[in-house]
Amino acid sequence: MQIGILVTGSEILDGRVAETNSHYLIQALTDAGFEVKHVLSSNDDLNSIIAGLEFLASRVSIAIISGGMGPTADDLTRESVAKFSGCRLLHNMEVQKQIEEFFKRRGRKFDPSNAKQALFPDGARVIPNPAGSAPGFHLIYQSLEIFALPGIPSELKILTENYILPSLSDKRSKLAFKPLNTVLFRVFGLSEAVVGSRVAQCGLPNEIQVAYQARFPEILVALKSRNYGLDLQLYAEQARNAVGSEFVFSTGIDQDLPDILKQLLIESKGTLAVAESCTGGLLGKLLTGVSGSSQYFLGGVISYSDELKQSLLGIEPKLLSDFGAVSAETAAAMASGVQSLCGASHALSITGIAGPLGGSDEKPVGTFYVGVSSQQSKFVLKCFFPSDRERIRIFAAWTAMDALRRLLVGQAQIFPQV
Amino acid sequence: MQIGILVTGSEILDGRVAETNSHYLIQALTDAGFEVKHVLSSNDDLNSIIAGLEFLASRVSIAIISGGMGPTADDLTRESVAKFSGCRLLHNMEVQKQIEEFFKRRGRKFDPSNAKQALFPDGARVIPNPAGSAPGFHLIYQSLEIFALPGIPSELKILTENYILPSLSDKRSKLAFKPLNTVLFRVFGLSEAVVGSRVAQCGLPNEIQVAYQARFPEILVALKSRNYGLDLQLYAEQARNAVGSEFVFSTGIDQDLPDILKQLLIESKGTLAVAESCTGGLLGKLLTGVSGSSQYFLGGVISYSDELKQSLLGIEPKLLSDFGAVSAETAAAMASGVQSLCGASHALSITGIAGPLGGSDEKPVGTFYVGVSSQQSKFVLKCFFPSDRERIRIFAAWTAMDALRRLLVGQAQIFPQV
Repeated sequence: MQIGILVTGSEILDGRVAETNSHYLIQALTDAGFEVKHVLSSNDDLNSIIAGLEFLASRVSIAIISGGMGPTADDLTRESVAKFSGCRLLHNMEVQKQIEEFFKRRGRKFDPSNAKQALFPDGARVIPNPAGSAPGFHLIYQSLEIFALPGIPSELKILTENYILPSLSDKRSKLAFKPLNTVLFRVFGLSEAVVGSRVAQCGLPNEIQVAYQARFPEILVALKSRNYGLDLQLYAEQARNAVGSEFVFSTGIDQDLPDILKQLLIESKGTLAVAESCTGGLLGKLLTGVSGSSQYFLGGVISYSDELKQSLLGIEPKLLSDFGAVSAETAAAMASGVQSLCGASHALSITGIAGPLGGSDEKPVGTFYVGVSSQQSKFVLKCFFPSDRERIRIFAAWTAMDALRRLLVGQAQIFPQV
Repeated sequence: MQIGILVTGSEILDGRVAETNSHYLIQALTDAGFEVKHVLSSNDDLNSIIAGLEFLASRVSIAIISGGMGPTADDLTRESVAKFSGCRLLHNMEVQKQIEEFFKRRGRKFDPSNAKQALFPDGARVIPNPAGSAPGFHLIYQSLEIFALPGIPSELKILTENYILPSLSDKRSKLAFKPLNTVLFRVFGLSEAVVGSRVAQCGLPNEIQVAYQARFPEILVALKSRNYGLDLQLYAEQARNAVGSEFVFSTGIDQDLPDILKQLLIESKGTLAVAESCTGGLLGKLLTGVSGSSQYFLGGVISYSDELKQSLLGIEPKLLSDFGAVSAETAAAMASGVQSLCGASHALSITGIAGPLGGSDEKPVGTFYVGVSSQQSKFVLKCFFPSDRERIRIFAAWTAMDALRRLLVGQAQIFPQV
């Protein structure tokens, strides 16, 4: 039961619209345990759509078509499926009456062009559309099962939930089909290549497929298998140990670094304040992206100018002139300064050179310092991550969050090898 | 010269990632006047990628492949193209040296697995990648011209701009083809539907195609024509006036709102400070995303807790208890407070309910206040933008920036109709 999605619409292929139907369908189908093998887009053109159907027929057993079900001349899904399967198109009077009533309920006129929406390939089952004027249809032709849906995202969603998912689940239960077994974990502080080669060295069974995804700045590692007898959790632990467990910040797709900090700090009744220079507020923004972060996050200071580093954080002018605003000394003073200013149990600071200007031989673009201060311990990390401004700032904010995570879980002694 | 795009990556077809490369490529290629006929996604699986290439070979003359160029075992584009075209893979020692140097410059170690990234099908031309460790390649096989690019969006973009577009344009100029004439402008504070109907009312000639793109939170409007005799700038001005020129914050694709504020404030020798509550640092982050923002941006306070609103911004406890932390009075006091704390000529503040929790009947989720304070004028905007946490915060930060823009260009009296 492998699925292919065929998205029709010239507005997609000429750049007017970023289509979202395929991603919705993929998520709905994979969440329900089905496997999507291909997504294909075609213009509103008979030959392109038929070519797409022929390709899918050679590769999958189920094709879901999005779009081309409207009343205008460029809506060609019905005609394409009819030609592909060698069926005639038949006019369904009952459906036309439903469409007329739909328009009446909405106070709109039924235009003669809408009669086209009551045409279906001979042998197709109509998929009712409670939310619009374009019903879908369901046709089995040789080894290919075709579902055709309207392209309007809200309508496509309703028809998928009401008809396609139940219909496929029925079919699956007859085949006693089981979804892929998957376990994942998330890594920060190592490159994809290093993660890949460390996992490769731990010799997982061949039945486990390992997928890597570089989702900057993290690497997502997923172990998948169709052998349900395997203890995938056990192998995932083996893989995590091979990578280095201190680099694994999460084992949940919904558990981001800020969620983990929130949980750790609330558990330990801690509070957090931040002092940001080159990140300009990004660290605070990430931490407060989680609802309920006010339970531990107090706030802090965006000390972008040297004057604010002095007046708000109490940093001595001499320290700034002796060591510079981008230095371990300044990072340490920023963290201590904001900790006492806000009365927080924990504080993080970031100062660095995000570029593209402002670098020097001694401190090139990408150099940054992270200060960590708690009641028990104070330390500074010096990092170098030469990249563009956006990425340097994201990497710096993540480094700060991950340093605090490691401190809170007792792994502060081992830090990312950047 | 019809183009097909092949997107590889299991993370796309299992729903982990909504891929954006195909939309970027479609836009870049159609803007340059090329036609994209199909987009196809395949899993990280040799047979799926080869099947995709065979399909494209039957339908188009140019295939652009995104992804599968990394160092891990599931990166299979090289192998697939080699098998498809019947070529061997050859190791390119010169490229390997470049990759080694790339890692050295970044202070990272070259992992032996990266050697794979120096493998190319026999006869392919290497497409250099200045931003990453995965070069692309360019191969002509029978009637199909193949470009293979790394899947990391920022790298794919660089290789497309540096290599693919010039290479295709060269080819086209031999075919005497002219690209579309395009003028664009960017709107904040109106919905796409409202922008669309206002532009429709101004009666542009039929030869001008108008494309809208909702790029949250802005709407991008592009006027395109193949009639090179038309004064497209003139019609764009007509369209901007129809929309309402105060809603048009930029006419440059590279001129974002923070760039415009930087220019306006530096010109007027102004300085800016911010006080953020529900946005938690996002406003500061956006402003400092522009290099050189330290010329006018001093910094500010993330006053997430009520205590910091009092101790740092000098807000009276009585004001907070009488009106609440989310109120016009608090927003005004935050702006004035941070302005004098930082000694800035201009200040912005944001306080609101980003949800999903914390809303009430009186102040539902999506309610926020923006305070603006300058030496000449002080005002507060009350806004309501019910959405999810992420979007509410982005919308609030943009509203604050746009309020300052309007103040600086003398349009403060007209505000977004949210």
